[in-house]
Amino acid sequence: MNYPLNNIPERPVKPRQKGITMVMDKGLSLRQTEDFIEVAGVHTDIVKLGWATSFVTPNLKEKLAIYKSAGIPTYFGGTLFEAFVIRNQFDDYCRVLDQFGMEYAEVSDGSITIEHEEKCEFINKLAKQVTVISEVGSKDAKKIFAPYKWIKLMNAEIEAGSWKVIAEAREGGNVGIYRDSGEVREGLVDEILTQIPEETIIWEAPQKEQQVWFIKLIGTNVNLGNIAPAEVIPLETIRLGLRGDTFDHFLNLNK
Amino acid sequence: MNYPLNNIPERPVKPRQKGITMVMDKGLSLRQTEDFIEVAGVHTDIVKLGWATSFVTPNLKEKLAIYKSAGIPTYFGGTLFEAFVIRNQFDDYCRVLDQFGMEYAEVSDGSITIEHEEKCEFINKLAKQVTVISEVGSKDAKKIFAPYKWIKLMNAEIEAGSWKVIAEAREGGNVGIYRDSGEVREGLVDEILTQIPEETIIWEAPQKEQQVWFIKLIGTNVNLGNIAPAEVIPLETIRLGLRGDTFDHFLNLNK
Amino acid sequence: MNYPLNNIPERPVKPRQKGITMVMDKGLSLRQTEDFIEVAGVHTDIVKLGWATSFVTPNLKEKLAIYKSAGIPTYFGGTLFEAFVIRNQFDDYCRVLDQFGMEYAEVSDGSITIEHEEKCEFINKLAKQVTVISEVGSKDAKKIFAPYKWIKLMNAEIEAGSWKVIAEAREGGNVGIYRDSGEVREGLVDEILTQIPEETIIWEAPQKEQQVWFIKLIGTNVNLGNIAPAEVIPLETIRLGLRGDTFDHFLNLNK
Repeated sequence: MNYPLNNIPERPVKPRQKGITMVMDKGLSLRQTEDFIEVAGVHTDIVKLGWATSFVTPNLKEKLAIYKSAGIPTYFGGTLFEAFVIRNQFDDYCRVLDQFGMEYAEVSDGSITIEHEEKCEFINKLAKQVTVISEVGSKDAKKIFAPYKWIKLMNAEIEAGSWKVIAEAREGGNVGIYRDSGEVREGLVDEILTQIPEETIIWEAPQKEQQVWFIKLIGTNVNLGNIAPAEVIPLETIRLGLRGDTFDHFLNLNK
Repeated sequence: MNYPLNNIPERPVKPRQKGITMVMDKGLSLRQTEDFIEVAGVHTDIVKLGWATSFVTPNLKEKLAIYKSAGIPTYFGGTLFEAFVIRNQFDDYCRVLDQFGMEYAEVSDGSITIEHEEKCEFINKLAKQVTVISEVGSKDAKKIFAPYKWIKLMNAEIEAGSWKVIAEAREGGNVGIYRDSGEVREGLVDEILTQIPEETIIWEAPQKEQQVWFIKLIGTNVNLGNIAPAEVIPLETIRLGLRGDTFDHFLNLNK
Repeated sequence: MNYPLNNIPERPVKPRQKGITMVMDKGLSLRQTEDFIEVAGVHTDIVKLGWATSFVTPNLKEKLAIYKSAGIPTYFGGTLFEAFVIRNQFDDYCRVLDQFGMEYAEVSDGSITIEHEEKCEFINKLAKQVTVISEVGSKDAKKIFAPYKWIKLMNAEIEAGSWKVIAEAREGGNVGIYRDSGEVREGLVDEILTQIPEETIIWEAPQKEQQVWFIKLIGTNVNLGNIAPAEVIPLETIRLGLRGDTFDHFLNLNK
């Protein structure tokens, strides 16, 4: 860090299992990707190319190469997986992952309806080719699961081969673990944490208030996802108690 | 596109009359303009330099040259036209268009009050020099027209020489065709479409929910405007049914 | 400016005491900093590296050098000062300012609680080393002062050596001089202005509606702060009556 400041919470070094920041790139140019890495690369664990944006970005191969040379793994958003599956093109999807040299893939069912057993089979198949991140929770605000169901689904997906499970939110942050208002469904999160190890979960938390809430609940090194590129530096200060929102929280812990 | 995905809605190639994406640039640097074009140029039909931002941007000539060499037409926002008109400097405005080699111009009356006949005369005069886009609707949330009035104004402006008419919204998206809440005035839009060909209208839709709404109503190739540069790639995925918001919509159409 | 437009409000040239635009940089890359300066440098008086973001940005020295060579002064956000003070590291803070060649510093008590006399002593000490900007108002939405208290605090800080006093708002714009809704506390602002010269105050106004409000109340050349880099050009047009929001306001003044 740039100067000596005492009593700053510790962050593990990358690659790490806890304290992960997963960033969403929804269409950066090559220079913007380099700029992002210059500023925030050291704080970024993995980058998701949001939903199916990779389908329409002209600079895909070059962009993946930039992330790779910076040591930052990348993966395509789960909606792309779903777009292939709904078209009965799962084999094509595997070839696309291979063709672009992807080392990670996301399996989700946010926009499609499939049996959970079938989802787990997809996880299992893909886990032989890449590291799988799977997502629990629907993009549909009306599909609300009880906590025991979240836990059951997460456990089955981990069992099937997922490296981490993601707790779904939209880019705007208003479904899944959040209420319509963007507020966290606290009881749900508490109950999930009694059964699933916190380092196995990545919480999608695109809004600052959500990031603050998870950091206060779980601590500096909670895994957070769907962070906008320009918000990685602000998030890092929140993790360290160096922004107004968590300034008091960590000072009180140190007392 | 980067990989083979079946049953994707077709997009016409540029230059096109339908499926237009009009982008608002409110102060990009030269490099940012190049970056935008690298990522989204192929999906962008025309760029508006928002309202009178061109008055205070130091890099104007160079920026216009970058857009030109990428084959993307540009025009100054209608508020600039109005700023010249209210000062009795319309002739100066024509000279400015000439001096900067502009091939398009916007005629609007969002901030000034002029007789509609006078507005149509401005359209008519400018149409001899450039391609005219004219805007219907006030920036004043209190000035609400009945649907028949929208239709009458649009028809008169097309008659006077407008290439396309724009249905006004603010950058924030809350007047004209939108309610204060940002919600679309659906009855108004339906009625306009019974009388004006859809390819003649560009709907200002800066917010994602508005884009989704128009794409669901009119289809993949609706003309949409006031799109932020970083939102062109996301919009393109919404048009193609490759984002959660329209994923179901296009699948159901294909059934 | 790029073309002749009559009756445009005058802006003083930099360096200026009135009409200041203070920008918040919360993690620009070196190229993004250059891009920002290219577009908006001429309209920017001073840049704050937001709160303690400077602690975790890898490019700090190089970025400060870019701003310096463009003639734009910089300072670290007040939360950094507070982070040092709460750790009893004030002397380290002075050394950090020295080490990075800072010519400005902010003294605030938004996240810590100190006696106002002690705050004024910090202002007094730092004023011997750098130009001090001090901030009045808490980040805590529950800590609301009466107007006479704001005036008393501001006067004491000016007396202690502050060059300007900042009226606090959060980045999101919802505490201090603003209500929870983001709305300005008008009576408070009016009363402050009866006692404190307007050129001595910088109003934090990150949201467009807030900028519009202050420009309508105080005029083109009000001092505004916490402006996002991409919003400097839009703000400049609002100051000049060249955006819908203030288009009428300045025309009416000229009548």
